[in-house]
This record gives sequence, structure tokens and C-alpha cells, in this order.
Amino acid sequence: MLTARLVRNGRKAFGAARTFSSLPAEAHDVASPSPDTRPAYSHTPAGRNHLFVPGPVNIHDSVLRAMHVPGQNHRDPWFPEFYKKCLSDLKMIFGTTDGTPIIFPGTGTGGWESALTNTLSPGDRVVTFRYGLFSHLWVDMMQRLGLDVTVIEGRWGDGAYEDKLAEVLKADTGKKIKAVCVVHNETTTGVTSDIGEVRKTLDAASHPALLLVDGVSSIGALDFQFENWRVDVAVTGSQKALSIPTGLAMVCASDKALGCMKTATSKRVYYDFADMLRLNPSGNVPYTPILPLLYGMEQSLNLLKEEGGMPAVAARHHRLAEGCRAAVAGWGLQTLCREPRWKSDSLTVIEVPEGIDSQKVVDIAYAKYNLSLGIGLADVKGKVFRIGHLGNMDELMLASALCGAEMALLDAGVKLTPGSGVARALEYWRSTARVIPTREGLMQ
Amino acid sequence: MLTARLVRNGRKAFGAARTFSSLPAEAHDVASPSPDTRPAYSHTPAGRNHLFVPGPVNIHDSVLRAMHVPGQNHRDPWFPEFYKKCLSDLKMIFGTTDGTPIIFPGTGTGGWESALTNTLSPGDRVVTFRYGLFSHLWVDMMQRLGLDVTVIEGRWGDGAYEDKLAEVLKADTGKKIKAVCVVHNETTTGVTSDIGEVRKTLDAASHPALLLVDGVSSIGALDFQFENWRVDVAVTGSQKALSIPTGLAMVCASDKALGCMKTATSKRVYYDFADMLRLNPSGNVPYTPILPLLYGMEQSLNLLKEEGGMPAVAARHHRLAEGCRAAVAGWGLQTLCREPRWKSDSLTVIEVPEGIDSQKVVDIAYAKYNLSLGIGLADVKGKVFRIGHLGNMDELMLASALCGAEMALLDAGVKLTPGSGVARALEYWRSTARVIPTREGLMQ
Amino acid sequence: MLTARLVRNGRKAFGAARTFSSLPAEAHDVASPSPDTRPAYSHTPAGRNHLFVPGPVNIHDSVLRAMHVPGQNHRDPWFPEFYKKCLSDLKMIFGTTDGTPIIFPGTGTGGWESALTNTLSPGDRVVTFRYGLFSHLWVDMMQRLGLDVTVIEGRWGDGAYEDKLAEVLKADTGKKIKAVCVVHNETTTGVTSDIGEVRKTLDAASHPALLLVDGVSSIGALDFQFENWRVDVAVTGSQKALSIPTGLAMVCASDKALGCMKTATSKRVYYDFADMLRLNPSGNVPYTPILPLLYGMEQSLNLLKEEGGMPAVAARHHRLAEGCRAAVAGWGLQTLCREPRWKSDSLTVIEVPEGIDSQKVVDIAYAKYNLSLGIGLADVKGKVFRIGHLGNMDELMLASALCGAEMALLDAGVKLTPGSGVARALEYWRSTARVIPTREGLMQ
Amino acid sequence: MLTARLVRNGRKAFGAARTFSSLPAEAHDVASPSPDTRPAYSHTPAGRNHLFVPGPVNIHDSVLRAMHVPGQNHRDPWFPEFYKKCLSDLKMIFGTTDGTPIIFPGTGTGGWESALTNTLSPGDRVVTFRYGLFSHLWVDMMQRLGLDVTVIEGRWGDGAYEDKLAEVLKADTGKKIKAVCVVHNETTTGVTSDIGEVRKTLDAASHPALLLVDGVSSIGALDFQFENWRVDVAVTGSQKALSIPTGLAMVCASDKALGCMKTATSKRVYYDFADMLRLNPSGNVPYTPILPLLYGMEQSLNLLKEEGGMPAVAARHHRLAEGCRAAVAGWGLQTLCREPRWKSDSLTVIEVPEGIDSQKVVDIAYAKYNLSLGIGLADVKGKVFRIGHLGNMDELMLASALCGAEMALLDAGVKLTPGSGVARALEYWRSTARVIPTREGLMQ
Repeated sequence: MLTARLVRNGRKAFGAARTFSSLPAEAHDVASPSPDTRPAYSHTPAGRNHLFVPGPVNIHDSVLRAMHVPGQNHRDPWFPEFYKKCLSDLKMIFGTTDGTPIIFPGTGTGGWESALTNTLSPGDRVVTFRYGLFSHLWVDMMQRLGLDVTVIEGRWGDGAYEDKLAEVLKADTGKKIKAVCVVHNETTTGVTSDIGEVRKTLDAASHPALLLVDGVSSIGALDFQFENWRVDVAVTGSQKALSIPTGLAMVCASDKALGCMKTATSKRVYYDFADMLRLNPSGNVPYTPILPLLYGMEQSLNLLKEEGGMPAVAARHHRLAEGCRAAVAGWGLQTLCREPRWKSDSLTVIEVPEGIDSQKVVDIAYAKYNLSLGIGLADVKGKVFRIGHLGNMDELMLASALCGAEMALLDAGVKLTPGSGVARALEYWRSTARVIPTREGLMQ
Repeated sequence: MLTARLVRNGRKAFGAARTFSSLPAEAHDVASPSPDTRPAYSHTPAGRNHLFVPGPVNIHDSVLRAMHVPGQNHRDPWFPEFYKKCLSDLKMIFGTTDGTPIIFPGTGTGGWESALTNTLSPGDRVVTFRYGLFSHLWVDMMQRLGLDVTVIEGRWGDGAYEDKLAEVLKADTGKKIKAVCVVHNETTTGVTSDIGEVRKTLDAASHPALLLVDGVSSIGALDFQFENWRVDVAVTGSQKALSIPTGLAMVCASDKALGCMKTATSKRVYYDFADMLRLNPSGNVPYTPILPLLYGMEQSLNLLKEEGGMPAVAARHHRLAEGCRAAVAGWGLQTLCREPRWKSDSLTVIEVPEGIDSQKVVDIAYAKYNLSLGIGLADVKGKVFRIGHLGNMDELMLASALCGAEMALLDAGVKLTPGSGVARALEYWRSTARVIPTREGLMQ
Repeated sequence: MLTARLVRNGRKAFGAARTFSSLPAEAHDVASPSPDTRPAYSHTPAGRNHLFVPGPVNIHDSVLRAMHVPGQNHRDPWFPEFYKKCLSDLKMIFGTTDGTPIIFPGTGTGGWESALTNTLSPGDRVVTFRYGLFSHLWVDMMQRLGLDVTVIEGRWGDGAYEDKLAEVLKADTGKKIKAVCVVHNETTTGVTSDIGEVRKTLDAASHPALLLVDGVSSIGALDFQFENWRVDVAVTGSQKALSIPTGLAMVCASDKALGCMKTATSKRVYYDFADMLRLNPSGNVPYTPILPLLYGMEQSLNLLKEEGGMPAVAARHHRLAEGCRAAVAGWGLQTLCREPRWKSDSLTVIEVPEGIDSQKVVDIAYAKYNLSLGIGLADVKGKVFRIGHLGNMDELMLASALCGAEMALLDAGVKLTPGSGVARALEYWRSTARVIPTREGLMQ
Repeated sequence: MLTARLVRNGRKAFGAARTFSSLPAEAHDVASPSPDTRPAYSHTPAGRNHLFVPGPVNIHDSVLRAMHVPGQNHRDPWFPEFYKKCLSDLKMIFGTTDGTPIIFPGTGTGGWESALTNTLSPGDRVVTFRYGLFSHLWVDMMQRLGLDVTVIEGRWGDGAYEDKLAEVLKADTGKKIKAVCVVHNETTTGVTSDIGEVRKTLDAASHPALLLVDGVSSIGALDFQFENWRVDVAVTGSQKALSIPTGLAMVCASDKALGCMKTATSKRVYYDFADMLRLNPSGNVPYTPILPLLYGMEQSLNLLKEEGGMPAVAARHHRLAEGCRAAVAGWGLQTLCREPRWKSDSLTVIEVPEGIDSQKVVDIAYAKYNLSLGIGLADVKGKVFRIGHLGNMDELMLASALCGAEMALLDAGVKLTPGSGVARALEYWRSTARVIPTREGLMQ
């Protein structure tokens, strides 16, 4: 039995996708590919895979390089200073100076869990919103952890309804609600809720509930004001705006949140803040850290700092998103998010016309143009596709995604004027382009 | 204020280890280092860091290469076949064909948690052993998760006492004990407990308790027989024998263990087997996988397979360990583990003579020879140092560690005959060396 | 004195571009860049540098990975088989089975030198064409090596004039001309000469002159028929179509050319075929090979083989070029090459309208869009810019170059309809796109 | 026909080493290797290849990382400042401030050629020494370039005989000798000639001949005083002391040497200094540079600077060599070089006892211990083996080579006391070890 080859972006592996015991060995000669007999996806096209899902995102080559390191001992004496710097550097993306960042080896899902279990007890009442798959999954987690969850349902494509939250808070005369949980940027729908308004709503109700925020696809890309918005726990993951591989769950906790650890009876060990907080101040960790990812994080943060910090980074994301939205308008299509104030600068979720299956658009993009777009998930499956433009991204990269999406849309049967989208995006980008710092001399 | 430089193995970073506002900028010119004014550990020596802690371990260069990949979309259609292959390939190191492997983004600590929360409920009675820091930490986790823990205490340097377990089981006439938990290889002390004997003890008592095993520093290096020993959950982590960076918690569960999921009321979401088992059969995952580490794992497993599979791998570890132990004997020192049947082939823990602080040996090794040894932890702090020889390791690598350890021992004031240790190790290795496969032609 | 930072694609280095002795150290904090005081080009923008010069070209990530190897000994016994395979594999791109490939550590310029010195003697008469900078430089080399060079001058934008060659050959009644030298693809002008027609011209004149061909920017990308065209020495370099870094000069010699070595009195040592041919058959080399580049070459050739070999590779280049030319037409601009049969599929050289400096287009593209285009060289400086599309390239990559070029053209004052170029390219590519092998299942 | 696998250090490639058409496909399953049917050297052992040949040498991991870069355009505007810095940084290793460094894409052999052809004309008389394969090859090159070569023959194991040179110079009453050529460090024999004494000999004879020096295996490792010794052209290559891959030929020329370019009639183009010198001052190059190697060179030079510059680097090499020589004495063997003042600090060449074939030692080291030692070349084939310890090297690395060499010597039948060599080396290193800079705090 010959083993079949699997390829992803030029990597070949011996897999067991199919068996070929009855085929001559020659069938597997790479020099003469026989499509009929090869396992699925075993071909490496020239060029590159064009990655435009809303995470994992494109990793800067200097970040990849920073992660290519030999095995190292985190108990060697250099480690503590390095780790303290890692924690300190993270504050920038949360928009905080007083918050306490914690890094877990894990994913955003783990970050969610840590936010809930370190501050709440089974039976505690929490209020949250559901307007997409990720907010749904967080609700599911809350329920499984034994919380008493009040869900404010919303249209998939809308953000957090502050008025409905106000009603719920008003009705809670006994101030029994322990926490309000909001997904800042819903990656299913391309919607960025307004956390500042949520905070105002809490304040208007003089409600003491904690404010727990999923910033997985916003923090590091969009404006995030941990301190001004008085967020209590914010959660993000490394494979989104920070543009490194998956594997770090990064949270930031307020003093108020940390104070809740004493009374929160949810059982927790791996994701317990307490073990981290006991050791982090001296630069230590309770279990082995993922060194390569920390090096990648350091370099990624260096790039964000060099760009001018979060205001500059958020401005870049807005400019990229505006170009993308101009293209959607040029095509005569609509984003799933209708409300301008909620349109996400991290990703754009595009509705396909009635009668078209958006999965087909995504499949064609991958099959013909080596372009990876985000599919429609759950309730909007088949109805939308998603273009991620967060993290390590520039306008020519995004332009190539628009080019590929346009071809795939046409191939899928969508009626649109060729070039209509890209032209609009380019005009927007051209009219707003600035000279890259240090290259000013070339423009004279 | 100038930022100070931190270096770990040739990587420089701008850190805040010290400030130098009153120093002239010239002080930081790399061409003329001024030791007095430089931050700690900011120098990259020629050669390499010699890494001999019992994890993280030396990563094979082909594994590092396999992990250097662009961002990729795990929802692209090639992923499911790849992931199914990852799970299937893992069975080899567990020694199973029927067990169910699960991969979490996390660490061994997370693996521990998953083993407990998926099979047990708060209040359940478990029996375990404490003979080192890691078994201690697992006990601590059990207690924090609300289990009723019976701890069989042992000398640090001994393994699991089967006779004491037999007594406990015998006394449990109502078969209330739900699980027996054993750390297979205690990394604090260099002791490998005998899981086969533990199983026999359970069988002799006709006790139905689950057998949960921490194989973090054994699985992938030492003989492990998931099926023969009827282990119910086995746990390991990627940065140990598999010789890839930290970040994957790998567990293997028996059908009996999986059956316990229905009744186990411990709350769990991130580390819930159920979400994995719902999606894994179709090659999917409930949250983003760490692709680079999966590629590293795949290549690491390829290397183990090429070596001849686990019997050959375990034999290599035994041979390396025997050489190391010969060196210890040559120096006139003792291993912390006295019982031959428990001596670990993953690492060797060496007692220093009375009056010597083992921390000094480790510090000298790092400060003068760029050699990273394992320090004595907790109860054996200052009394022992540890040489890790698991994972991607060969005899000439380990020989260099013995050379460095000998110099550090002498520097620290230990009386020993120069060359006495290395000579013994080399003689052992020479007398047992085999020709590397495919190089036989050179020996004619 | 503080050293200034230089950056190229995210790499920082301490350079001496400027000194800042009078500036406060804070000016260099990466978190608050002060453009006025930073050295030129010291900024790393988000995204990536978009590389579209006609060499060096974009390197496939699997090729970069293949080159990331530790130091290795080329006298170890595995080397000879590997090197023989390297030489054998190279035949594919030359289009030969009988030719003798030789690999020198060097560049295309070195390959030129080897072609001349191994076959000719000072004073020998050669005929060649000059229609761009590279053909000019080869003429210069011939003259410096003491050859008697007859140059057929051509318009920059035209290819080899076969009729003029016929005249020269006809006039050479004594058959004194020893070689005809042709640059196959002139990278200055985007012109591919017709080597098959040159061969026919030689045959028609029954002329025995050697046919020496510079295939630096064609071989590995375009149709090249070493055997059918009876080329005697063909020359290429690694950083062009093979898409690996500079450093390998690869030549292929006919038996006729090798026969000339005996009589050729040009002095040569480093670039002598003889030393190579003495050792290569046993897999050895006269001086140290560049192992990482050989590994890169091997992987690059694997990718070309997997694509279906040179017919498929040449077809891809043609399709990319046709799309690019459609865009040029859409903009209302012209390629420097007017004759359809000579239009290069490796690169497109575009004339800017009167009154526009093409250097400005290139500078704007780099300064604002991080796009590297080729400048106009020598006689066409300021008049043209160049888009390279050879090597590791796909349509979405090239689309992004067209997007950037359009914005830069508009910024530079060229009148064109926004979107006019990209739309035409996309329509061509869409109408000619095929499903990537192994992804057919997605299209059902 | 199945293709066979070749492996070098964990890299697998599809090769044609053997064919297996009659074997079942299962024979190639990596999980069950069948030594009899596998092609030679197709196995990747655990650990690493231990590389101790005198070039190529071990590459620092930070240098490997620095070279892992995307394709880049050397005509982008950042390049000139970078390249000027490269040239300027190189001066350190030559020991010059006034000399002119030039970097060619090529090897040391190319550097030799450039030194000769840029300063001399066919028929010019030169004097040189032959005491090993490399000095022999340089003589051969001189003869092929048409020079009139006077060779002072020496024992293989001796250095440049200054007294014989004095005689030759004295006899040259007409001062017809144009150049004296010396291989500084003969890599065949482990001999470092005394260039300072050669200079004194020239001065004593008031002879105006140029002094051309091959410093391929010395420059960057050993003391080299371009200015004090008034060297006219010095040559080195990247894969030796600089510890990067092969591919850069680096030369340094005095003003006197540059003055000879006008009159030197040797034909030269690729290796012509003139093209370089016309463009280098503005940071440009006449043909494409090898960017990754330049980045590697930059990082390698950074490491040497950080170490304290050439005095510190040379001191490290001396200390490593002294330890190696102590081991040789401990084994009761002799170095091929007998004269203390000539013993090389770059490599040690060790004579095996009568009746032992040194090739066998090298083969056993590779076949059993994955240790790459240097073989005996040409006249000393079978009589010596070589341990390279130049470049990126520390004492524990070299200790592992001594361990492996000892085992291989014993296996080959050499009588020696086990441990006798390593013990002596360790004692020397221990007694001379210094604390690594910035780690002083650990020693308190």
C-alpha cells in the first residue's frame, strides 16, 4: 500500500488519505501528476496561498524568523526579565497602564473560560448578547459552567443593543447581575459592538456588574480602551490581530476583577489567575511557557510600536476596511452589518445575492485562485462569505483578495461589472495613501 | 533612557532590565562591551547553548524547519485529512491501537486537568502518590478540583509503592475509590514508576478504579503500554520526549474513561473531551489548532518511526541513560533514585556531596560553559542537579553535558578524578554502539 | 554616537547611515518614531514588500524552508549521490537529455564568462546582438576577454534580427566566425528573441559557429529547447525563474561545446568546465558547493515537476504575461516591445507617456505602496518601468502588482481610467483559469 | 519504479540512488525500515550531525535565522547604505582600516583568482610555497593563468620557510619577482605560517614584490594584521571562520595592489576589481549580490564584535586548540605539525599510528557516532585525520568531538587509554575558563 501525499502550502506529508494498492507506483511520480489517482489537495501551486480569513492571519516574515529558535530552558536566569517585559509590552494593545495582563498557553476559548471562572461562581447571574457563532459559543460556555445566563438576542449582523441591556439592568433592582459579557467584534458577522456605550449604559444604571469583553478579533487591531471603558476582563488570542500562530490566550484583568477571585467559587486550576499572579511578578510561570510564540509576540508588538502604536494601527485597519467596503459597494453587494457604527474594521462579511450559495464562492476561490476566504457559519451559512483584513496586512495584499473574490463571485454566477469593486477600493486607497515613514525622500 | 538588551541564545531584544540614563550612549556599542554597564545575560557566546534539562529539550533541525510556515487556514479543505492523520499517528507513542488520542492546545498541566475533569466528579475519592514536585502539583490540582484525595507519601527518589497501594485498595471494601493516579516518570527525582505493577496491584484487588497516568516525561521516550497496562487516561506534553516546543497537551483515553464522561459532573469546557470527540472523527476541532506545532509533531513522529518505532526509541534512551549513570558512578556520586528498577531513562538526578550547594553547580555550568542543567526543586533544592537526556538526543550530545557537568562539579568544589565520569560513559557507549542504519557500507 | 537603524523587509541592523550625537536618546524609541531624525528606510511597514522586479523573485516558502539547514560537510558520504541528482534534475529546465549541466557558485555573469572562455580563444571572431543593457554587458565582456566581436545593433524593444545575422553569416565565406551569442530574454526591454529562428538561420547558412545563449531570465520560465535548437552553451542563474536566492550560475553544454575546450586558449580556472567535468561524474566538486542553495534548487525543481514540467510552467508564464499585457492595454499604454512574437512572458516593460518620468512611478510605488517595480535601465532610463512576473508567481500576486502600478501611475500624473487595467487582466485570467490539480472535488 | 530517498541531516529527497522495481512498496514504509533495501545514507538519526571539519563549519542559529528572508530587490533604495556597511564591517576581520574590502559571489578559489588576475600579467614571476593540497592548488592556478611560478617545496606539516624565501629573494637581483604568495593556514596539515616573518623577510631583502595571502581558513579566526604585515591582497571565504554558508569570496586589497590593476594584463571580468570599485563606493554592485549571505555575514560579524573583536576571537580559538592538542597528547598521538610556532588554532591534524588507516577512523566516526571529521587529503591520505575547531565553536562542542574521535580511534584499533584525551582537554579548559560576560552575577 502506498501512502498518499497531503500538501498544505507546499508541505508534503505522507498521509493515509487514500490507498492505491492496485495502482502502479509510477502513478505517484511527481513529474507526471495524474489527477485522477492523487489524493485530495496534494498539489502545491506556484505562488502562494492567499490567506484572507479573519484569523489565523498572515504572519510577518520577521515574526516567523523570530520564532525559529532552538529548544531553550525557561528556568535559565535570563527568562524572568524577558517574561516581565512580555507582560508589560502587552498593555499597549489592551489600552491600559493599570490592568494586569496574563498569558496562558491556550486559545481565545481558554481566555473566555479564565474570564468567567476567575470572577464568577456557579449560579451567578450574567447578561450577554448573542448575534453570531462566537457569542453563541460563549453563551454555551457560561451555561456549562453553571452560570445563570440572560441572553439578549440580536439579528446576526447587529451589535450589542444598549437599550435592551439598559432594560435588563433597570429590571435588576437587586443588583443581582454579576457580569455583563460582550463579544466586541463578532467574527461571524463582521460587527464591532460599542463597548464604550455598553459602559455608559452600565454607568447610567449605576450597576456594579463586571464588564467582561471578548476582544479576540479586535484587540491589537481596533481601538480598545481597557481603562477608559473600565473593562474588567478582556480576552484575546495570538492568531488574530497579533498575527502570530495560535497558542497564546492573553487576558487583561482590572483590580476589581482580581478582587473577585477571592469569592469566585468556580473550580479552576489551569486557567486560574492566582497561580499566574503569584509567580508573574518575579518573571516566573506555573507551567512551561511557549517560548517561540512569546518571541513572535515580542516581535509583533515591536512592529505595532514602530507603526506608531495603537492609534496608527487602528487607523490602518480602518483604511483597509473602508477600501474593502468600497469594493463591496462597487459590486452592488451589501455587508451583513447594516449599521455604519457597527461595521467591523477587522473583517468584512458580504452577503451574496439570493439564489447563490456563498460556499460556492469560497470553494471556487480556493479551487481556482488559491484564495482562502472565510465561509458563512451557522445561521448565515451559504448566505455570506468573509474577507479578513486584520493583523499583518496592507492595501496591495487586500487588493489581491478583492481581485480573487471578484473572479470567484463572477464564476459563481453573481452578476457584477468586472473591475467595479477593485477600482473603487483602489481609488479610495490612492486618495488616502501616505508615504511610508523614512521613504519621504523618494517623493521629492 | 536607553533600553537594555536581553539575549537568549543569540536573540536580542530591547528590554527594560536596567536603565542607563546617566551613561554615555557609547557604552552600548556592541563592538566594545563594557560588562559593568550591560544588563544581565545580554551576551551571546560563540557556539551554542547546551540544553540538558528534562524538558524543554533539543529540537531536531528538521522539526524546526517543519514549523516555519506561513499563516494558514485550518478551515481550508485539506485540514481534516491532515488532522485525522495527526491523531492516528499519535497512537504509536502511547502504545495503543484502541485508545482515543486527543490533542489540546495547552500544556501537560492542562492534560492533567482534562484527565480528572472528564472522568470524575467533585467529592470522588482518588488515590495517588507523592514523591516529587510534579506528583505534588497533581495532588494539589485534585484537591482544588474538589476530589477526595488519598496520598501515599514516598521518599523523593522512590517510585510508586505497589504494596501500599494494595493496602489502600484492600481497605476500600466498598470500591469507592474512583481512580488511581500515578506520575509515571517523576521529573523532580529521576524516577520511573512501574505502571505495569500498578495495574497488577489493581487487578489483584479486583478493583474497578480508573488508572490515570501522567506520562509527561516518559511517553515518547520510554516503554509505555497503554493497552497492556489498561491505562484509562494517559497524559503527555509536546516539549518533552516529542521534542517540539511547548503547546500541545496530548492525552489518550480508554473506552472506559470515555464512558465516565456521562457521569462525571466536574465542570469543563476548554478541556472537555466531548467537544473534541464530536468533531475529531471528521477531522475538525472546536477551536483553532496550533498548526506549526502539529507540523512539528508530525515530523517528530516521522523521526521516531524511522528510528524503528518505540522499542528502538526506548532502547536508545536506555543506552543514553546507562552511559550517564556510568559517569555518575565514575565520579563517585549517587543518583537520587537508589532502586535499580525505578531509575529513569529520561533524566538522571545526581546528588552532590554534603556541604556542596547543587545550585552552585548549575550556576557555574551556565555561567562558564553555557550548559543548562536542571536545578534541584522543592524538597531536594540545593541537594541535586538534573541532566535531561530525553527526546532528540545522541551520545555525543550527552557526552558534552557530562564534560560540562564534570568541570562545573570540580569548580564547585566536588572532589573527583578528572575524566573519571566521561571515560566510563564513553566506554559504555563504545561497547554498545551500533552502526547507524544505511551507513553499514562504511564499515567494510 | 548612536548607530542608526537600517531596515529591509523587517530586518533591522545597526548601521552608520547617520549619526545623532546631538539628539536625545529618546528620539530612537521605536514606540514614538520621529521621521525627521530617523535614517532612511528604517521603517518596517505592516504587510509585506511586494516584489515584482524581473529577479530576484519571490521565493516559495517551501524553498526558503529547504534552505534553512545547519552547516554540513560536503565530503560526507551522502553528498555524491545528492549532487549527481542535482545535475540530473537540472536537465529539465534546459530542455535536454544529452546536454551536460554544470553548476558554479556564482551569478549569471559568471555563467557568461564560462560560456566564452571554455569554448573560445582571444582573437576569435563572434557575432552577437545588442538590444538592451544585458546584451550590452555581454558584448563588453567579450571585448574584455579579447574576442573580435561583431555587434548587430537593434532597437531597444526588438529582438535578434535573424535577417541581419543571415547577412553576416553569408559574408563570412571563410567560416571564421566561431560563435553566435544571443541573449534569449533581454531583461531591460521585455523581449524574448527567437532562438529557434536563429538556429534556422545558422543552418540555412550551413555555418558551423557555436550557438551560445544567455537564458538567465528565460530558462526555467519559458520554453527552452536546448536539444532541438542545438544550443551549445546555455546560461542561467538561480535568482530568476528558479526562484531561489542568487548564487548559482547554471550552464548546460553540448558535446560540440565541450569539444572546444581542448582548443580554447582563453585562460580560466574558477570557471573552467574541465575541473567540474573531471569530478562531477563521481558526484564531487573542485571547490566547496553552496549547499543551502542546492537544497533550494532541488525543492524548486520539485515544484516545477509537480506543476507538470516545463510545458505547464511555460503555459503559466504565458497566461500571467497575457493578463499583464491586457492591463497595459487597458491603461492605454504600450509595451516597449512592439513585435508580438518577441513579447516576453518573463516580464513586461511598459512605456510611460511623454513628459512622465518612469523613475517617479517606481519611486511612488515603493514609497507609498511598498511595491518594488523594475526601473528603466540605461538607454530607456526614465522612459519605462518593468513588472517582473517570472518564477514563483500566480495571478493574484500579479494582480496586486497591477493594482499598485495603477495607483503609482495615477499618482505620477498619468491619465488613465481607474480600474481599467486590473479589470482587463482579471477578465482574461478568469476566462482562462483552471482548477488547481487535486481541488477538482470542490467544484462539483 | 520507486525513487529512493536520500537524507542529509533530516532532509529527505526523492533521488535515484537505486531502483526497487521488484520490491514491494511496503519496503519503503518509514515505520519499518529494512536496511537491506534502503539506499545509502537515507536514515536520519536522533540528535544531530556533529560537524568538525575545517569548513564548512557550524552556523550560529541567529545567523541561520538572519538568512531566512523573502526574495528582495537589491535595487531598492535601502540597499546602498546596507552594502556600504557590509564592506566597512568586513575590515575588522582583515585587521585593516585602510585596505579595500571587496565581496564576490563565489568561493575562496575565486578569491585566489581575483588576487592574481587583478595584480599580475601572464609571464610575471611569482614565488610561493607548497606544503599541502591547498597551496598546491593555488600553484596550479598560478601556472594555468600563465604565471612563472617558483615553488618552495616544504614538508607537509611545515609552514613557509622564511630562510628559503630569503635566498630566492636575494638571488632575484633584478627584482623581477612580482609577488610572493603564501597560504596563511594550510587546511590540509593544520599549519599556520608566519606572515609577519614573511613580511620581515621581504623587507630585509628590500624587495618590492606584492604579498598575496590566502587567509581562507585563518581570517576571522586567527590573528591577521593586514596593515602591520603590509599584505597586498588577502583572501577568505564565508564558510570558514565567518561561519556562514559558502558563497562569498571576500578579499581585501592594499592601495599598492589596486595600483597594479592598471598594468596587470591578465584577462578578467567576473573577478575584476575594477567593476566593483567603480560601483561599491556608492553602495552598488555590478551584478546581483547574494542577499541572504550578506545578512548572515552581518550577523556573524555582529557576534564577533560582541565577543570583543578579533583579539578575543583569536584568544578563543587558541584556547580551543590548546585543549584539542592536550587531548592529542593525552592519547599519545602527534599532530602532523611539529613546530610549535606553526601549530594552527583553526584545526588540528592528527597522525594515526603506523598500520592504521585514518580513513577508517573518519568512517567509523560517521557511521557509528554521526561525527564528521576531516579526512587526510592527497599526500597525507590515510595517515591523518582532521578536527576543525574554527568559527562558531565552544569548548563543550569540541569536547563532544574529542569524545567521538576517541571512540572511533579505539574502534579502529588505536591503542590508547580510555578517557585520556578528553580528561586532559577538560582540565586545560577548566583551568582557563572565564565567566561568560553578563553572567558574572551567577558566580557570587
